[in-house]
Amino acid sequence: MTGIYLDNNATTRVDPLVLAEMLPLFTEQFGNPSSMHGFGAAVGGKVEWARQQVQALLGAAHDSEIVFTSGGTESDNTAILSTLEAFPKKREIITSVVEHPAVLALCEYLEKKRGYTVHRIPVDGKGNLDTDAYDRALSENVAIVSIMWANNETGTLFPVEELARKARAAGALFHTDAVQAVGKIPMRLADSAIDLLSLSGHKLHAPKGIGALYVKRGTRFRPMMRGGHQERSRRAGTENAPGIVGLGAAAELALHHMADENTRVRALRDRLERGLLAAIPNCFVTGNPDNRLPNTCNIAFEFIEGEAILLLLNEHGIAASSGSACTSGSLEPSHVMRAMGVPYTAAHGATRFSLSRDTTDAEIDTVIKVMPGIIARLRALSPYWAGAEKAPREFAPVYS
Amino acid sequence: MTGIYLDNNATTRVDPLVLAEMLPLFTEQFGNPSSMHGFGAAVGGKVEWARQQVQALLGAAHDSEIVFTSGGTESDNTAILSTLEAFPKKREIITSVVEHPAVLALCEYLEKKRGYTVHRIPVDGKGNLDTDAYDRALSENVAIVSIMWANNETGTLFPVEELARKARAAGALFHTDAVQAVGKIPMRLADSAIDLLSLSGHKLHAPKGIGALYVKRGTRFRPMMRGGHQERSRRAGTENAPGIVGLGAAAELALHHMADENTRVRALRDRLERGLLAAIPNCFVTGNPDNRLPNTCNIAFEFIEGEAILLLLNEHGIAASSGSACTSGSLEPSHVMRAMGVPYTAAHGATRFSLSRDTTDAEIDTVIKVMPGIIARLRALSPYWAGAEKAPREFAPVYS
Repeated sequence: MTGIYLDNNATTRVDPLVLAEMLPLFTEQFGNPSSMHGFGAAVGGKVEWARQQVQALLGAAHDSEIVFTSGGTESDNTAILSTLEAFPKKREIITSVVEHPAVLALCEYLEKKRGYTVHRIPVDGKGNLDTDAYDRALSENVAIVSIMWANNETGTLFPVEELARKARAAGALFHTDAVQAVGKIPMRLADSAIDLLSLSGHKLHAPKGIGALYVKRGTRFRPMMRGGHQERSRRAGTENAPGIVGLGAAAELALHHMADENTRVRALRDRLERGLLAAIPNCFVTGNPDNRLPNTCNIAFEFIEGEAILLLLNEHGIAASSGSACTSGSLEPSHVMRAMGVPYTAAHGATRFSLSRDTTDAEIDTVIKVMPGIIARLRALSPYWAGAEKAPREFAPVYS
Repeated sequence: MTGIYLDNNATTRVDPLVLAEMLPLFTEQFGNPSSMHGFGAAVGGKVEWARQQVQALLGAAHDSEIVFTSGGTESDNTAILSTLEAFPKKREIITSVVEHPAVLALCEYLEKKRGYTVHRIPVDGKGNLDTDAYDRALSENVAIVSIMWANNETGTLFPVEELARKARAAGALFHTDAVQAVGKIPMRLADSAIDLLSLSGHKLHAPKGIGALYVKRGTRFRPMMRGGHQERSRRAGTENAPGIVGLGAAAELALHHMADENTRVRALRDRLERGLLAAIPNCFVTGNPDNRLPNTCNIAFEFIEGEAILLLLNEHGIAASSGSACTSGSLEPSHVMRAMGVPYTAAHGATRFSLSRDTTDAEIDTVIKVMPGIIARLRALSPYWAGAEKAPREFAPVYS
């Protein structure tokens, strides 16, 4: 597939350097890292190297704080279920209304089937967390807070380090789904009160099927997957050695490219956003443009359907997203847009462009060039657009 | 790593043809299969192709019965936990004493922490299941039976189809950990009463980090991993597309090589076994030599330590195993050997040779040549050997 790939928050291309590190693990150094012979030992050393790379990317104090998992969903589920089991008397959970389904669906299950009380902290029109509501929800009854570091749809950042300090003061563990944040912004977990953190390899140019859970030393932990003693008895199952080594290599590369992500990629994203806002009427940025991931912009185009936008973009070889890939197929607008109070007439047209270090100037030029025509074409077909063009907007846009 | 790899029950080399199928999924067709654009759609088609290959290998009636997971441990854990949740009033589990830790450790947890009654069916000296004990344990209180198809240490086969029919008659679901059996012996699940079956990619020349759970159509199911709607809402998390395609390719190859596995590989295994038994005194085959996987032999060498055997074999570039890689590092003899009543003096020296379609005649010649010297060298150091050489054996060997 060639084309312009601006859906890096859904998944990223595996970096060829990552793949090169992985390749020997498939057909040459293919032993089981837990085995007692040379085929296994060589692999075990590489797994530990990878653990140190992830430790470095997170700024964690100890490499033993990194537990490899099959991905973000497993890490999220493990963090929450582990904590609830470790603190059986605490029957409350705090999360936010804009979490990924890997947290929200689990919390809904825990509420409906296991009798937990779930506090879902709301956000304002820019996607910022209601910290007053957060403070009120915290108590000694709360086992775990699970609040994402960066929102997958808008890129909006939550003040997780501050939230974690408050959770600790209240006696709750703090977990953050940092699947979108890891590799894009600097982290220093050793200096934070964050107890548990989830990351996913395929969001940072490692392959699908590998992720990690950071577990701060001293955190009470109960495994979700039971069996062998792999990962210090915290995650049973033969280690996915090629995936782990790929994640290690990707972590090393992410640190190397961190400055580029926060300067060149950010500038490309800003240019794309300004270009689209200037050329297209009745659209606005969703989320908080002043406090978000450097690679993400989400623009709501009023009076049209995001899925139609994606189809026409696809005809131009451009990949973007509406909502999350994990909830695609649904006719409802994204829960994130609804939580921010974006009106339906705009929320349906919310389109996410997520860049990566592979994104080029020429690609951004192309998107800025084709997008106005796509929007105009769709609006010409929209029954809502005719009279609305000059009507006042229901929602104050961030720009213009 | 070059050498003679006879540890294929621990993990296998990824077939180069499998890797070739996977490669485009890393850096070219890298989209999220759940995405709405061309990058994603191309991948989705390959995932469904892979599902059909696994269906064919298992002889399953529907491709929708295949749920991709991260491996055997996740599949085992999911099958058991799903069933217990789906039938909350049934508080008993049946398993065997020789299961893999992915089943035994979970059952122990369920017994100790969740109050379930676990019936562990014993085996006889050849590793055959005590079917009378099985019949007695079955009742309407049993939610699930989890009994392996083939034992990982000895290769001994259990009559899972018959056991499944009995479980069904008693109103229990039947799960089999078929991690060692899939790809080595023919299967026709469409005609069986097996409700749930676990398999692992890396045991059949696919990579680590991918597996599947067969869920017969109509089986009550509750997911272990909660989040997005992937895998028809049975396993949340972005699909490990390269791993899935690798597993599909490996399944196709396993069908293709099934006859070779059961003729040429079996003959190699038999020649290895006869060669070692003829050349080395005081050793015997463990498990049931008349009813086992074609690729596995496990020989107990009396009065020496399996780990020492492995170290010396490793010096010759030969990889074998004692016990399971998932329990390595333990000083106790394998739970499988203990369950069969193999005396400690022999159980400690039990050594598993597990072949694959990559195994050659020349490799078997080498092992037959070097093994007698290794055993003699170790016995010369053994305080137990001196007088024992002519003493009667405590355990009747299968071969004299």
